[in-house]
Amino acid sequence: MRWYVVASLLTVLTSSQGILTTLSQSNGGYKYDYATVPFLAEVFKLLVSSVFLWREMQNSPPPKMTMDWKTVRLYPIPSIIYLIHNNVQFATLTYVDTSTYQILGNLKIVTTGILFRLFLKRKLTNLQWMAIILLAVGTTTSQVKGCGEASCDSFFSSPIQGYLFGALSACLSALAGVYTEFLMKKNNDSLYWQNVQLYTFGSIFNMGRLLMDDFRSGFEEGPWWQRLFNGYNMTTWLVVLNLGTTGLLVSWLMKYADNIVKVYATSMAMLLTMVLSVILFNFKPTVQLFLGIIICMMSLHMYFAPPSTLVDLPLTVKPVSESVSEVPAERKTDS
Amino acid sequence: MRWYVVASLLTVLTSSQGILTTLSQSNGGYKYDYATVPFLAEVFKLLVSSVFLWREMQNSPPPKMTMDWKTVRLYPIPSIIYLIHNNVQFATLTYVDTSTYQILGNLKIVTTGILFRLFLKRKLTNLQWMAIILLAVGTTTSQVKGCGEASCDSFFSSPIQGYLFGALSACLSALAGVYTEFLMKKNNDSLYWQNVQLYTFGSIFNMGRLLMDDFRSGFEEGPWWQRLFNGYNMTTWLVVLNLGTTGLLVSWLMKYADNIVKVYATSMAMLLTMVLSVILFNFKPTVQLFLGIIICMMSLHMYFAPPSTLVDLPLTVKPVSESVSEVPAERKTDS
Repeated sequence: MRWYVVASLLTVLTSSQGILTTLSQSNGGYKYDYATVPFLAEVFKLLVSSVFLWREMQNSPPPKMTMDWKTVRLYPIPSIIYLIHNNVQFATLTYVDTSTYQILGNLKIVTTGILFRLFLKRKLTNLQWMAIILLAVGTTTSQVKGCGEASCDSFFSSPIQGYLFGALSACLSALAGVYTEFLMKKNNDSLYWQNVQLYTFGSIFNMGRLLMDDFRSGFEEGPWWQRLFNGYNMTTWLVVLNLGTTGLLVSWLMKYADNIVKVYATSMAMLLTMVLSVILFNFKPTVQLFLGIIICMMSLHMYFAPPSTLVDLPLTVKPVSESVSEVPAERKTDS
Repeated sequence: MRWYVVASLLTVLTSSQGILTTLSQSNGGYKYDYATVPFLAEVFKLLVSSVFLWREMQNSPPPKMTMDWKTVRLYPIPSIIYLIHNNVQFATLTYVDTSTYQILGNLKIVTTGILFRLFLKRKLTNLQWMAIILLAVGTTTSQVKGCGEASCDSFFSSPIQGYLFGALSACLSALAGVYTEFLMKKNNDSLYWQNVQLYTFGSIFNMGRLLMDDFRSGFEEGPWWQRLFNGYNMTTWLVVLNLGTTGLLVSWLMKYADNIVKVYATSMAMLLTMVLSVILFNFKPTVQLFLGIIICMMSLHMYFAPPSTLVDLPLTVKPVSESVSEVPAERKTDS
């Protein structure tokens, strides 16, 4: 499968995630424990990857599977980063309001670019750097609070700790992504074997989180496994299935494309969700959404279009530029 | 003088124009008749250009001055276009509110690009087209009405005629600019001789407008020449001087640079005015202003930076790209 097909699929599914989650609410609240959703999604991904791995093992040659402890021990690290990230997110929200929090979230686009460069040593052209900054600016533009909206919080009025925690959160989120890419591309192990390791630890850490919640509430509602499916309906299952599938697509992208592709897919998904909300939930369309979409489209084109289609190159180099136009643009500038 | 020095000067002066005009008001209104300002500015430009032309005529060789009617008759055309433009602007404002009007005004950035291509046959690279669209998006972003602002008009709620008149207005404004550039570059006449013709007609048309206003009001306040300097103070004279000087700089740019340079200078001026208003008049800084500035800076860099600094070009073409990097970027792509 081509990377842009997977990225488009990820965009559509991530965007339906927002819509489905809204639809799964009743009277503005969840009837089910939302923390069970990511756990079940991890289990779903583990099951799917196990089945694919098992099928691969029937074939010859068998899939490449590195099993030594030195490699396996790297797989819980993304889960650990996400765990720290969740707590930093929580800390950020004690200092800033939700709209400032949402706007700060766009910083992760830029931090992903930076860590992608520093950690994975991938070179980007100046135009691609500008595209990444514009993507962050575009998603932020679409989120600017409009005239006449209920809560009117100023972006510049939070305490400094809020912005620092927000920046830390953006760094951790980028680190988790970049680390996963490093892990997936480290060797040419079977994707499914890598997934099985990733999701085994993912399931364990999510289970740990459910257990922690239980301890915090003093087991008032009983242990999590007794009320796992409480309040679940068809839509809730769709949310789980959708979250699991997007996770599998992200894994694929981390191995065969990269973090920047993922960042574009999820940013476009956010805009798509906003457009769908205008259509489905009768949200009022704003100028800033319209502007944000134009900016992100420009950014997408700037990042991925072959440079020869953007600037006039002397005729002699045309064949060179065209011969590489079939691979993702970001590959062209690898060092 | 280099084109970017003139463009920077134009940016600073255009931006002070907004500040000076605000300072020249007393209690939120004008004590003087604002229509006299552009008239006096035209007269100022005519005087300055005449003096420079006279000095040029003392030198040898004497300046080139085409005087045949076939050429001279082209010089009132910009004034005529501006006259029609003013009326269309007036018509637009009967259909849309001022904030929608302001946002529609950014369309002239894009229409200038289009007429620049069609009328002057100047080729732009795809990246430069994207830069022009981003400039319009950036200025619009900075103008998005923030949360909690007094008047809360929706951009999408005006009648269709409003948008059509707004688009027509953007086309006329672009046409006037592009036509002036055509006129100034048509032959290698002295800039000052071209200016003298332009501003003679400009003064006449502005005089005509003052007379029209008198007729409309039935000469209630007497003819315009009797109350020309009524309510003028030091700041008002600075406004006149400033408007005149910016006009002369625009003329220079039309002859030695182009419309796109002018559009960038005036857009940057608008942002600079907003930043200065935050500092001088204690306006509240908004996220959208901050985002708009980033977008416009990116656009500026995309348009004017030599392509070789934006994308990785094969080594063999570097010398070619670098040899042209000293002339304005837009020249490079001339057909």
